[in-house]
Amino acid sequence: MAPQLYPEYPPELSPEEEQYLLSNLKDWSIAHGLAVRPAPSFVPTSHDPSGALATTAPVTLFPSLFPRKCFEEGLAIQTAYNELYSAIARDEQWLQTIVEELIGVDDFVGRLWQIHVQVKLEGYVQDLSLGLFRSDYMVHSDSSASTSSLGLKQVEFNTIASSFGGLSSQVSKLHNYLLKVGAYPVSTAATLQKDALQLSYSGFNLAKGLAAAHTAYGSSQTERPLCVLFVVQEPERNVFDQRHLEYALLTGGVRSFRLPFHRTLQDTKLDMDRTLVYIPPSMPSTAFEVTTVYFRAGYSPDDYPREEEWKARLQLERSRAIKCPSILTHLAGCKKIQQVLATPHSPHLKRFLPDDAVASRVLSTFAPIYPLDESQAGLEARKLAKDPHTAARYVLKPQREGGGNNIYRKSIPGFLESLPVKSWPAYILMEMIEPPPLQNAIVRNGEVQKGGVIGELGVYGVCLWRSGSGENSGEVLQNFEAGYLLRTKGDQSEEGGVAAGFGAVDSCCLVDA
Amino acid sequence: MAPQLYPEYPPELSPEEEQYLLSNLKDWSIAHGLAVRPAPSFVPTSHDPSGALATTAPVTLFPSLFPRKCFEEGLAIQTAYNELYSAIARDEQWLQTIVEELIGVDDFVGRLWQIHVQVKLEGYVQDLSLGLFRSDYMVHSDSSASTSSLGLKQVEFNTIASSFGGLSSQVSKLHNYLLKVGAYPVSTAATLQKDALQLSYSGFNLAKGLAAAHTAYGSSQTERPLCVLFVVQEPERNVFDQRHLEYALLTGGVRSFRLPFHRTLQDTKLDMDRTLVYIPPSMPSTAFEVTTVYFRAGYSPDDYPREEEWKARLQLERSRAIKCPSILTHLAGCKKIQQVLATPHSPHLKRFLPDDAVASRVLSTFAPIYPLDESQAGLEARKLAKDPHTAARYVLKPQREGGGNNIYRKSIPGFLESLPVKSWPAYILMEMIEPPPLQNAIVRNGEVQKGGVIGELGVYGVCLWRSGSGENSGEVLQNFEAGYLLRTKGDQSEEGGVAAGFGAVDSCCLVDA
Repeated sequence: MAPQLYPEYPPELSPEEEQYLLSNLKDWSIAHGLAVRPAPSFVPTSHDPSGALATTAPVTLFPSLFPRKCFEEGLAIQTAYNELYSAIARDEQWLQTIVEELIGVDDFVGRLWQIHVQVKLEGYVQDLSLGLFRSDYMVHSDSSASTSSLGLKQVEFNTIASSFGGLSSQVSKLHNYLLKVGAYPVSTAATLQKDALQLSYSGFNLAKGLAAAHTAYGSSQTERPLCVLFVVQEPERNVFDQRHLEYALLTGGVRSFRLPFHRTLQDTKLDMDRTLVYIPPSMPSTAFEVTTVYFRAGYSPDDYPREEEWKARLQLERSRAIKCPSILTHLAGCKKIQQVLATPHSPHLKRFLPDDAVASRVLSTFAPIYPLDESQAGLEARKLAKDPHTAARYVLKPQREGGGNNIYRKSIPGFLESLPVKSWPAYILMEMIEPPPLQNAIVRNGEVQKGGVIGELGVYGVCLWRSGSGENSGEVLQNFEAGYLLRTKGDQSEEGGVAAGFGAVDSCCLVDA
Repeated sequence: MAPQLYPEYPPELSPEEEQYLLSNLKDWSIAHGLAVRPAPSFVPTSHDPSGALATTAPVTLFPSLFPRKCFEEGLAIQTAYNELYSAIARDEQWLQTIVEELIGVDDFVGRLWQIHVQVKLEGYVQDLSLGLFRSDYMVHSDSSASTSSLGLKQVEFNTIASSFGGLSSQVSKLHNYLLKVGAYPVSTAATLQKDALQLSYSGFNLAKGLAAAHTAYGSSQTERPLCVLFVVQEPERNVFDQRHLEYALLTGGVRSFRLPFHRTLQDTKLDMDRTLVYIPPSMPSTAFEVTTVYFRAGYSPDDYPREEEWKARLQLERSRAIKCPSILTHLAGCKKIQQVLATPHSPHLKRFLPDDAVASRVLSTFAPIYPLDESQAGLEARKLAKDPHTAARYVLKPQREGGGNNIYRKSIPGFLESLPVKSWPAYILMEMIEPPPLQNAIVRNGEVQKGGVIGELGVYGVCLWRSGSGENSGEVLQNFEAGYLLRTKGDQSEEGGVAAGFGAVDSCCLVDA
């Protein structure tokens, strides 16, 4: 185990210090919507049938220390990433070559592609696409260098349902509040300075992105009231994260509704010109025209239990509403794409980022990724993956979105053996990022768990662009960095995802490492 | 039963309308701290030992309709009420004659008075007093008039721990939000207009009052950091109501701490000059100088289970901190005082409100109140109270603060019989206010209860004044109306108090009745 980078942080707390910190944290978080609905394991549904209870979202007691250089680099290159992924989503032909390799291996990708093909046949009627992206990184401690150096390495790039933008803003305010009320011991004063703590404006900025799409859509030709549609899972424990975006939208005068994905066909319809009309069950006599469909569902095969959900996705994709994301943008988030970009000596990055300086800056955040197919690189990777000794430096990831099924290190060879070889190309092999060991404490349902942790920095990006074959095709109407997320998990678990119960929302306290 | 004043309001909801309204209400309230810790009957402590859970505070689905004239009158006369009660609190001699009638009957009042006497003996060292008052009213429908007329009648005047200022601001925003997102059926559009819904700025204004006292206190002569001390009960389910004031204070740069009343002697001490010093258990090496003691505890005998709490109250009263309220101000809130002011043909009101026009405006909000002592008025009242027929128009209230023990109408004769006659003067007899019947729905723990309701309007007032014998004695530094509270309860229950589980926080939709 590498030595602690900041062995004195966070400090030990006396019982009185911990009690003060916790009670301030628990009250502030509920007072400011830094909350989730409790898991059934905490509060069984039978105890709260109407779902009135909430609990503090899993958060860290302290902001985690984060190398300033890495943080600033992550934020600085986000607009390049926005450019990259919007360019990929516009390049249907290139996407097709990639996706075709996955069809037959990954049904989900195949069905998404079919939807695109089907809509393309009759012609798209909306050439604007919105991306609310999040690029996730870990700090990588390169021990091979003569002096250990820290850099950002990308874990994944999310093109659909990038979550926690609402809660991230709140947790950064929480840590600021705790600093302000003296809840952090004086021994931390040199480190925890107001300037070092980074507020995240992700909630505001993601809403700004949705509002930009809403405005760009234009007015209704039939004088219907306009709205943004949040397509959501149901039930949704992480509902407050999404609600913060809705409230920010409303402050800007933009109406929004939550549509459970499985209700799509009941509650929406397409006009003759494929205008997407939403009729809220609560207002059956009012038809809203949907300017923007914001998917917070539909990213996982689990969201499509029946054929009806596939019809729903098709209906939304066919519509004249701006999709966040479109099918092509959704597909651009395949891990396969991350892999072909990050395969050493890949020619693809240049195709989308013609500026060499920009491309090399993005490239430096890639960890080596290999396909598991029958290409030269793939065959080489299979060797690495089957040998427990070499596999120990890698993680095996499914190509599809959603997380939760990564296979780590020495578990890889056994897992591959259990899988027919023809299914192997559904996975990619990625060199493990080796984050410097850190300490923090996570509060979950009021209980504190202390120990070694790993942080994952997510940087949000907003991009609104024009595809299609019109004369303005390729026009980028919006491209901005949109705040950050720090997710921190215990270093025993190797899987992220706070809502799934494996980590906590955190904020950055920058240090000059 | 009188006919409904607004028979069409609130409207019946379809299941879909109710579902939309409820889900918006439940999410918004948690996202904005319109919350309470759940009652043990809802979530047993064993299920949430560290107290992480919260639930939507009991609120009404709709803002209740409220006569505009009454609402405006309540707000308009609040500064007169502030003037009245601060003048009472400054008039020690007059107070003494009142309190002496209660000593021996009401131990609690007697002990509070003893504290005053004891501090007076050595001399007060702080001549500023802060009042965060709340005057509670009901709309009274006077059916004796030839045409039924509506007026405000005072239920009680609170001089200590006036609660719900924080939540009231939030509930008025909630109802505005629900209107904005179309959660109220179109049939209500003529009534529920944006201008009719009244935002309450009580949270902000009460904090402004505390900040004014904090500033008026001046700086520390020993260069200690300054703070406001919230003296609280523990546990406190209604903690977010109080926290909203703390957050508003902090926004204005004022530090505050929560001191459980029972911890007073451990965590505070008096300097030689009786400066009140607070040493937070979490920061044992930092001594704060307390500018203002804000009591959200200490108003009920239950808060004084041991002699230690009486010593604690004495220590705080002796101190140089500004008290909100001082003992004399606390005593000014005795129901006995409301009674002597409201006894028909009382000479007392003029003493404190020399301006006849002001006095008569205040007087018109009094419901007739009688003592139960051996005075002429008292003997007459005893007759009324013992006869079930006449008692049916009255409520019997204990003189002391805290509520929860009122005896209503036909229960009065039996109750008095069970009480030794010498204890009768501890109660006052008040003519029942007859509010016009209204309908609304209350949401408690996510469940909706519909039916007839009664609303109680509270108007907050802030007053900061100088007592003592100095040349500026009587100076009023601050006097302003500070927002409102509407509490709505089912008309079966005759007792208020939302946190106690009998009512809900509401907001006013004004109507020209």
